[in-house]
Amino acid sequence: AVPVAQPPAAPAEPATVISSYGEINYNRPKDHSQAQADIRRFVIGLQHRFDEQTKMVSELEVEHSIASASDKGEVEVEQLYLEHRLNDTYGLRAGLFLMPVGLLNTNHEPTAYYGVERNFVETAIIPSTWREGGLQVFGEHDNGISWSAGITTGFDLTKWDASSSEGRESPLASIHQEMQLAKANNLAYFGSVDWRGIPGLRLGASVFDGKAAHGTAGFASPGAKVGLWDLHAKWTPGAWDLSALYARGSIKGAGDFNLTLAGAATPVPNAFDGWYAQAAYRWQLAGDRVLAPFVRYERYNTGRGFDGLPVGLNPGSYGTEGVSTVGLNFQLNPNVVFKADLQRFRLDTGRNRLDLGVGYAF
Amino acid sequence: AVPVAQPPAAPAEPATVISSYGEINYNRPKDHSQAQADIRRFVIGLQHRFDEQTKMVSELEVEHSIASASDKGEVEVEQLYLEHRLNDTYGLRAGLFLMPVGLLNTNHEPTAYYGVERNFVETAIIPSTWREGGLQVFGEHDNGISWSAGITTGFDLTKWDASSSEGRESPLASIHQEMQLAKANNLAYFGSVDWRGIPGLRLGASVFDGKAAHGTAGFASPGAKVGLWDLHAKWTPGAWDLSALYARGSIKGAGDFNLTLAGAATPVPNAFDGWYAQAAYRWQLAGDRVLAPFVRYERYNTGRGFDGLPVGLNPGSYGTEGVSTVGLNFQLNPNVVFKADLQRFRLDTGRNRLDLGVGYAF
Amino acid sequence: AVPVAQPPAAPAEPATVISSYGEINYNRPKDHSQAQADIRRFVIGLQHRFDEQTKMVSELEVEHSIASASDKGEVEVEQLYLEHRLNDTYGLRAGLFLMPVGLLNTNHEPTAYYGVERNFVETAIIPSTWREGGLQVFGEHDNGISWSAGITTGFDLTKWDASSSEGRESPLASIHQEMQLAKANNLAYFGSVDWRGIPGLRLGASVFDGKAAHGTAGFASPGAKVGLWDLHAKWTPGAWDLSALYARGSIKGAGDFNLTLAGAATPVPNAFDGWYAQAAYRWQLAGDRVLAPFVRYERYNTGRGFDGLPVGLNPGSYGTEGVSTVGLNFQLNPNVVFKADLQRFRLDTGRNRLDLGVGYAF
Repeated sequence: AVPVAQPPAAPAEPATVISSYGEINYNRPKDHSQAQADIRRFVIGLQHRFDEQTKMVSELEVEHSIASASDKGEVEVEQLYLEHRLNDTYGLRAGLFLMPVGLLNTNHEPTAYYGVERNFVETAIIPSTWREGGLQVFGEHDNGISWSAGITTGFDLTKWDASSSEGRESPLASIHQEMQLAKANNLAYFGSVDWRGIPGLRLGASVFDGKAAHGTAGFASPGAKVGLWDLHAKWTPGAWDLSALYARGSIKGAGDFNLTLAGAATPVPNAFDGWYAQAAYRWQLAGDRVLAPFVRYERYNTGRGFDGLPVGLNPGSYGTEGVSTVGLNFQLNPNVVFKADLQRFRLDTGRNRLDLGVGYAF
Repeated sequence: AVPVAQPPAAPAEPATVISSYGEINYNRPKDHSQAQADIRRFVIGLQHRFDEQTKMVSELEVEHSIASASDKGEVEVEQLYLEHRLNDTYGLRAGLFLMPVGLLNTNHEPTAYYGVERNFVETAIIPSTWREGGLQVFGEHDNGISWSAGITTGFDLTKWDASSSEGRESPLASIHQEMQLAKANNLAYFGSVDWRGIPGLRLGASVFDGKAAHGTAGFASPGAKVGLWDLHAKWTPGAWDLSALYARGSIKGAGDFNLTLAGAATPVPNAFDGWYAQAAYRWQLAGDRVLAPFVRYERYNTGRGFDGLPVGLNPGSYGTEGVSTVGLNFQLNPNVVFKADLQRFRLDTGRNRLDLGVGYAF
Repeated sequence: AVPVAQPPAAPAEPATVISSYGEINYNRPKDHSQAQADIRRFVIGLQHRFDEQTKMVSELEVEHSIASASDKGEVEVEQLYLEHRLNDTYGLRAGLFLMPVGLLNTNHEPTAYYGVERNFVETAIIPSTWREGGLQVFGEHDNGISWSAGITTGFDLTKWDASSSEGRESPLASIHQEMQLAKANNLAYFGSVDWRGIPGLRLGASVFDGKAAHGTAGFASPGAKVGLWDLHAKWTPGAWDLSALYARGSIKGAGDFNLTLAGAATPVPNAFDGWYAQAAYRWQLAGDRVLAPFVRYERYNTGRGFDGLPVGLNPGSYGTEGVSTVGLNFQLNPNVVFKADLQRFRLDTGRNRLDLGVGYAF
């Protein structure tokens, strides 16, 4: 074992950086026989700066501890892109990158959010951790505006599994491609903008749009399209940390495909959305310890309507779930966090639970 | 490729350490058509010290070279925990850690043991590499006593596969959970103590106990319990390296479950145990090379008895296997080892074999 | 995240080096619905020098982004060996190493070859990335001659799947073992020699030979043997980069096995071969940017003949495919490359395609 030294390199010289984060979670629902402990994720990051302008960013993630032909975990390349800065303001990225959507997707280390589990809106509606492969241009301006826009791979609606509940839990996560031999006949477009013009305040929005059938032979809805947009805000006056987000997704033109599924458990929804509001108070303790109680309220609906299905077979709407979370983040130092929370569900009350977690990021 | 520098950091500063170990083994049993060469394991370790008191320890392992939906290998998070020292004597650990049991489980690099393969007692009775998730407190005292105690996840007896031979090869390895979406309704308790009061001598013991049914609906033995304890000793007078160990495990209260398996190949044993004694002579050669011939004798029984089965269906006992190993470790340097040995089995003589191996650890 | 420092260590001191390379490819064949984008590979390399003479070399690779029980990617230990130099001229290697065959197999980073995809001859005939486990001795002489010879694991013909097309795409890749619980009753022998006596010129050859049935009970061709040899040349006069290669493989003595497959889609070929010639012009731009247009022509046949099959069932020969590639490598810096090319196939014209790629290596 050879220790890795501290940053001696001048900014123009090549340098390699290793980072890591991890989460270990314990969930105890009302039905205690469902209590579970899990290495939710262990991530190794590798970055390399080739020169002052160009770097490589990558993340390798193991979920659920073990990946093999007979285990339930998986190994994932979560990011792998090259970034080239044209000047202090503009830059380009090529490869597999996190989509600049919402508050959590690009900022998903356990030390960065409140609560043991990531919020539902940014997992069920925005399919975090959502990444696509493609090209991106971005800008960071002195007036506090930052933005990005690009062309990427998109979703594959032909993967929709109407017999599974996955499409109901998170419509877009069930048809994401993660750049694994991804169908790429149809590409998608995205844009994002954030404003940080006032210290402590961030306001932002994003939009994504792309066809999802890829000319697949025999697929009933060749023109089907996926869209997603969000609005988000974060404000940190003093010790308070307040945030709110609304996200809405759609799968348009999938009515003919739905007809072929008539009677199946999970048809394709035409719209799904959700919002949350969250307030935390960061209480600074001795050293750099922080005790942060927080509350969050979320509402989301993963199926607002279903095209193409006659009245008797059309679910209409799944109904809007509401989740209240009350909890505590304790940061032993800025890189290590212990978490506890209670979650109550409005509709699916059997999911009410206690969560405990440990996480780190460096 | 950017070389990683030598340890410049003062102990109080953050630092990342990369370690690794690997084993490549060749086994040639009496039936030569079963000869096999394998990347037994390749491990990358990552440690990060956040501050003087707090660090993260992790290990990522690949076994059998390739992991995929159609291959036989696997990728595993073998350790992932946070350690926080309260002072020079006491500390806490949280996360997935190696159980402090026996001599090999927490000290399993190929340079740390004699022979190409790990001993049978610490794989068939103690399910090395055995790790659980939980909380641990430990102490290291000036008088040579070190100890640990904690609460962790445990085994899942509902996974027992009575049609497979896995439960006969290693009862506990066949029902370990490895913190992969682990059932955690029942938690387990462990304690360990070691004494190193005389230079060259180590005496130790450990105990583990936990329920294993987790309230799983429909499981016939809801009160089933797993226990394991061991005694171990290591003595290194001069160039000699002597060690001995006894371990005994039990699965209590599984009689009703066994009844539901009546007639199946592998019922649940109520007890299993084993011991070994080993002597090596470390012959110091030029440089830091070491030639170490060794002998080891082991006896173990993975099924001493079976609850709940009527006489005709009760295997009674599997019988006690005995294994003699004679071999040679050659250390090219303290971190690189070449190994060769011969193994003879008392009962299952078809397993008699020649083993060759290469290993490293840093 | 802690930056890794620059090389401070004296050559005799232990040091760890992290390297990486990656490829992201987009293929658009004539049938656009088959267009695909893929994280072809992401590789982390770890090397450790124990002392002036001894080092460990390893590579861990993820292909196709995600590996799990339900995904199509895989995680592979691609190299894992110990190297010990006896003096400036001779050295030994033990473990899993790349076979010293052709131009690409040991030099396969995306920055090292022209075109988005690796050439067909060195994937269909030489099964790149081809590695075996064993022992190797090598020499590097002042007169420009370098050579290696060794004994290794070999292929497992009992894995041949006559119902799959894999054996037609690359006969040897379909029966490689990758040191994954590899059958090792039969070992194989190899040798390679290269001459770099004139600056800019490299001439080389290699040969491999080994039995492939391993005494497997019931296998119809117990004496079957795999052979492979190649001749290769590379010449870089001025800005030109010219190369050519011929490789020929054989599977001898598999006639009886083929008889048992009679009528199956893919019998075992007795011979397969191919050659290519390639010319690139490296146009040096501002900074260390390079624009390199290139052309390559390849011909290969993965089945020249089939032993043991009567005339009606004997495919005779698969016919010789010819592939022309015209493309452009653009190096942003020596470690980052963007690629584009067009490929035309003589026989299987449906595979004609446009390829785009991004790669890096450090």
